[in-house]
Amino acid sequence: MANSVWGTPAHRANIESLGLSKRRALPLLGADGISSVAYAPDEIVLMLSFAGTAGLVFSPWVAFGISLTLLIVVGTYRYNISQISERGDYMLVHNRLGPVPAMIQGASSMVDYLLTVAVSIASGTTYIISVFPQLQPYNRGIALGLLLLITIFCLRGLRSMGRIAPIPTYSFLVLLGLTITAGIIQHALGTLHSATSSHYQVIPQGHVQNLVTGVGLAMLLSRAFSSGAVAITGISTVNNSMRFFASPKKHNAARTLMYLGLISAVLMVGITYLVKKTGAVVVQDPQRFLLVDGQKVGADFHQIPLLFQITDAVFRGGWMTELVSLATVGILMIAAVTAFIGFPLLTSTIAEHQYLPVQLSARYSRRLFSNAVIMLSVSAAVLLLIFGTDVNALIQLYIVGAFTSMSLTQCAVAWHRFRTLRITLDQMERRKLFRDLAVTVLGLMVTVAALIVVLFTKLTQGAWITLILIAATVGLMLMTRKHYETVDEDLKLGSDDDSLARARVLPARVHALIYVPRVRKPVALAVAYARASRPSSIEAIAVNVVEERTKAMTTKWEQLAVPVPLTILDSPYRDQVKPVREYVRRRAETSPGDVTVVYLPEYVVSHWWESLIHRRTVHRIAHQLRRENGVVIASVPWNIGRSHPVEKPQASPSSLAQELSQQPDERRK
Amino acid sequence: MANSVWGTPAHRANIESLGLSKRRALPLLGADGISSVAYAPDEIVLMLSFAGTAGLVFSPWVAFGISLTLLIVVGTYRYNISQISERGDYMLVHNRLGPVPAMIQGASSMVDYLLTVAVSIASGTTYIISVFPQLQPYNRGIALGLLLLITIFCLRGLRSMGRIAPIPTYSFLVLLGLTITAGIIQHALGTLHSATSSHYQVIPQGHVQNLVTGVGLAMLLSRAFSSGAVAITGISTVNNSMRFFASPKKHNAARTLMYLGLISAVLMVGITYLVKKTGAVVVQDPQRFLLVDGQKVGADFHQIPLLFQITDAVFRGGWMTELVSLATVGILMIAAVTAFIGFPLLTSTIAEHQYLPVQLSARYSRRLFSNAVIMLSVSAAVLLLIFGTDVNALIQLYIVGAFTSMSLTQCAVAWHRFRTLRITLDQMERRKLFRDLAVTVLGLMVTVAALIVVLFTKLTQGAWITLILIAATVGLMLMTRKHYETVDEDLKLGSDDDSLARARVLPARVHALIYVPRVRKPVALAVAYARASRPSSIEAIAVNVVEERTKAMTTKWEQLAVPVPLTILDSPYRDQVKPVREYVRRRAETSPGDVTVVYLPEYVVSHWWESLIHRRTVHRIAHQLRRENGVVIASVPWNIGRSHPVEKPQASPSSLAQELSQQPDERRK
Repeated sequence: MANSVWGTPAHRANIESLGLSKRRALPLLGADGISSVAYAPDEIVLMLSFAGTAGLVFSPWVAFGISLTLLIVVGTYRYNISQISERGDYMLVHNRLGPVPAMIQGASSMVDYLLTVAVSIASGTTYIISVFPQLQPYNRGIALGLLLLITIFCLRGLRSMGRIAPIPTYSFLVLLGLTITAGIIQHALGTLHSATSSHYQVIPQGHVQNLVTGVGLAMLLSRAFSSGAVAITGISTVNNSMRFFASPKKHNAARTLMYLGLISAVLMVGITYLVKKTGAVVVQDPQRFLLVDGQKVGADFHQIPLLFQITDAVFRGGWMTELVSLATVGILMIAAVTAFIGFPLLTSTIAEHQYLPVQLSARYSRRLFSNAVIMLSVSAAVLLLIFGTDVNALIQLYIVGAFTSMSLTQCAVAWHRFRTLRITLDQMERRKLFRDLAVTVLGLMVTVAALIVVLFTKLTQGAWITLILIAATVGLMLMTRKHYETVDEDLKLGSDDDSLARARVLPARVHALIYVPRVRKPVALAVAYARASRPSSIEAIAVNVVEERTKAMTTKWEQLAVPVPLTILDSPYRDQVKPVREYVRRRAETSPGDVTVVYLPEYVVSHWWESLIHRRTVHRIAHQLRRENGVVIASVPWNIGRSHPVEKPQASPSSLAQELSQQPDERRK
Repeated sequence: MANSVWGTPAHRANIESLGLSKRRALPLLGADGISSVAYAPDEIVLMLSFAGTAGLVFSPWVAFGISLTLLIVVGTYRYNISQISERGDYMLVHNRLGPVPAMIQGASSMVDYLLTVAVSIASGTTYIISVFPQLQPYNRGIALGLLLLITIFCLRGLRSMGRIAPIPTYSFLVLLGLTITAGIIQHALGTLHSATSSHYQVIPQGHVQNLVTGVGLAMLLSRAFSSGAVAITGISTVNNSMRFFASPKKHNAARTLMYLGLISAVLMVGITYLVKKTGAVVVQDPQRFLLVDGQKVGADFHQIPLLFQITDAVFRGGWMTELVSLATVGILMIAAVTAFIGFPLLTSTIAEHQYLPVQLSARYSRRLFSNAVIMLSVSAAVLLLIFGTDVNALIQLYIVGAFTSMSLTQCAVAWHRFRTLRITLDQMERRKLFRDLAVTVLGLMVTVAALIVVLFTKLTQGAWITLILIAATVGLMLMTRKHYETVDEDLKLGSDDDSLARARVLPARVHALIYVPRVRKPVALAVAYARASRPSSIEAIAVNVVEERTKAMTTKWEQLAVPVPLTILDSPYRDQVKPVREYVRRRAETSPGDVTVVYLPEYVVSHWWESLIHRRTVHRIAHQLRRENGVVIASVPWNIGRSHPVEKPQASPSSLAQELSQQPDERRK
């Protein structure tokens, strides 16, 4: 409780910016994009293997196409970056296109973050199992364990992230660079080994004869493209996290974006090239479509990711393979962490527009980060429980959200440039704007085209789940906003309002009611406090549940000579709450201009678990009374085991007669 | 919420007594005892089969021994019944032997009820599966489904129980009577068929050679006896539920007890006799110790309960078998329901002695039945999840608790009679007392002997779990009582106490603080109510979280000319709760004799789910302030979407100057 997300309670200034230099921003915020080479090539090969081994020849070309798309998107995003506010794409779309597209953008991005976490963890688990095959039966456990570790890390020690992230990311880049270079040299020298899986037989699925026609081939390549396009999804992380960059933020973000694009493109092409040359293969459903030594594989067959396979082929099963895998797991975990950084910022921005619960808004809750982190973590856990560590199944859900969000961003920039162009007269300005617009429109066309391909090929594969998720999120956002608007309207206090003058009118009389559960010290305290406020009338009430107890109570009340009349409320059904509520309501109805203050004596135990074995009658009464009008619910706490003012009077005890004859104003200043 | 357990809210008079006549009491309260013939014979045969088929010859003799024990216990219990209070055995032991034995008695009885539910449901599931073998894979699901049905029934419609219970119970008795009679006649005529399992081969376990020695045989018979003794456990249900009987309660209870004993004894002997004659068999671990046609059975082999097997043999596979099974399931469910009736009464009695949480005490909570029913249901669900529908495993836990509780009851009666005897001088009286004492001591000896046999043979089989459960329950009871005593001591208001006089002293001054989250209508209402109580000082406080919002707030406060000064508390860490608590504490420390009333304006939404998306700051402040001394926490509720007194003034608005110049007393009567 005492510590915020960033370790110690975050001072306001610290949350806004980590001030990452380019050198530190790339490994942290670029991890999402770069790490996708750990699974994107597999997705391409997986899809191409539908056509059997024959399909695999296209893999470097598909990778090339994806890299080209990536570079175009990155190129156009760099032009857009001047338009993007520090608060991310959602804000841009909100300001340029209005609330509904913004909600769609926001919901898509939320789903995108969620799937970044799920996919990164599932893929990381696959690499761990490739290194330690004996862990195969525990894959869900490993995935959930990783998620838990990341969640705890994000809740407690995120601050050190800028210093930790470079280690796995740069290790990954160096090791993978080494692997690819060594592989290409080996291939040139003719010494490149084949991958273990190169002698597996892939059984073509379904209508492989369609492959000869152009439509079949186009379909196959589209599916491979849209699966591999997962490599492009990482770039929006950079945009949405611009506030973390050191100044000049936009310049640094644009540079980081460029590096990210180039690195990802080179790695994609390099890996798929080596995959082709080593003959490594993965298929979607190995039990059905894979023959090893002419035999179908069993249910416990674990497919080795391609990156692991080519490293293994290049370094011939040495410890380098394990090292590359470890670095891969490392960068995938960093990718998951970036989602945990980006998500709270996004939800906080959306919550400020009242589309998400106020608990997620940075303005209102210092626990915003914890709330959002826990929300993201629980959602990811649900996904992992449903889909297990099946990266392929999760990828089907992933890409739609990412491309929807990117298309909307491009659209917002294009629309703004188009409108600015219409009102700009200066020729130089117009020319520059026109060039920018042309670039943006190119980017928009590419992302929309990619989105259409993805929707077309993925809709029935699982993307419908994503669309429903996005639609449901938008629906909830609209309902949330509507509710807040209703409440705001009802509570608004206009300075020109009638109600304002009325608010200054005091209630005619104040009636005090003291609820008496048992005649004990807290009641004495409540009586003292109630009398001290000098109400117009004062009365104690008790509920008759067990006859003899009630009698004992009234006897004691008289014995103690409490200077307040005690009224017994009857309760034939042993209910202690309803009679009190009804009595208060009747009182309020008979004198509607007055206010009734109900004093509830309450003892407070030292530990929360002690409170489990005490009755909550007083709380239930308080809760019920909240629904009444003209009522103030005054809790008088008595802390068990602590001294109280009632036991340490400042004045000496005066006689009852004296007290009662005192004028109310005598004790006042 | 509106309905109590008994359907509609229970009037006090209804809970105490269902007023069951003997004819209705036997089927309801006797179901626990009678239904045990559905599994007790199986337990005897199971244990004897350790020695292979050879062991089975003893089964009617073990059954006879158990029946004899049962009759002795019932006979002595009838003599005890004049001693047993209407509130059950726990109360008897408490009054005669003191609190610690009573706690052990109570904890044993609680565990006993729990296992009645678990065993009855597990056994019922076995019968359902015997009728519908295809349901075998869903046995846990069926058991949990039955539990859920019974729980819902007990929460809602228990009232109709007196009318429903006779149907399955009397059907069961009639059908079983028919079966046994028909079976004996068939055997006499030599036409009795063999059971399906009679040609199964039973592999003897372990040291069967020991059987020739007397020790081995005694061991085997003891184990069979202690397993079959589960048939005796049902009788305490009658004792503990005496308040449900029609008057004369004790007479009716004694009669019911006698019928129960006779019926159970006859059925036990009859069933085991037919089991022997039909050659039916069950073993503990069929995969290891059962050969069918010379082959070991598979993991999905379902053992048919003996009652089902003999009905099948007698009626040669006709629909009668299904009918008897259905009636068996019915009576087992009634047995589970009786535990759900007895358990809340027991926990309520214990809770009145403050050994269990006050929420279980009838005096304090009209939801006592729901609380106890849910507690029992959840515990039974846990047992069923751990042990599945393995009746045998559950039986191991069952018997220890029952015999511990019975032994303590007998001991309490014997001790009381012994003490009475010592102070009785009248010879006639002494002779009667001596006879009663002798009977009780006989009963005590039998139950203690049975308990020792059970402990000796069952301890390592699972009874240790029960002992730990009982010990843990007693430990929790002691801790609970200790806590309540501490609290009571701290809160006690003695009439001769110093603190009494002090309690009559009023605090010197009343300070009002109004917490201002935003300047809206609820705050206006809180200000009006605070001012109406005419405190010595009045002040509004707000926490500065976002600079510009705070500025807007102060501007609005001035604009509205609220006649109360507004203090802004700084909060560098965005925490809205701590600054308020600290401010209140500082105020209280500077004037320890005064009371500070903190007004918390609070808006109340119409539905609970709407409150999920609102901040709980006000609740958190209230919760924190409860730990401070000299503080009253005054919630001022504002119901969203309802009209409020602040908007419907009784008096016409008066000017601010007028108001401030008013004398406090002018508005009073």
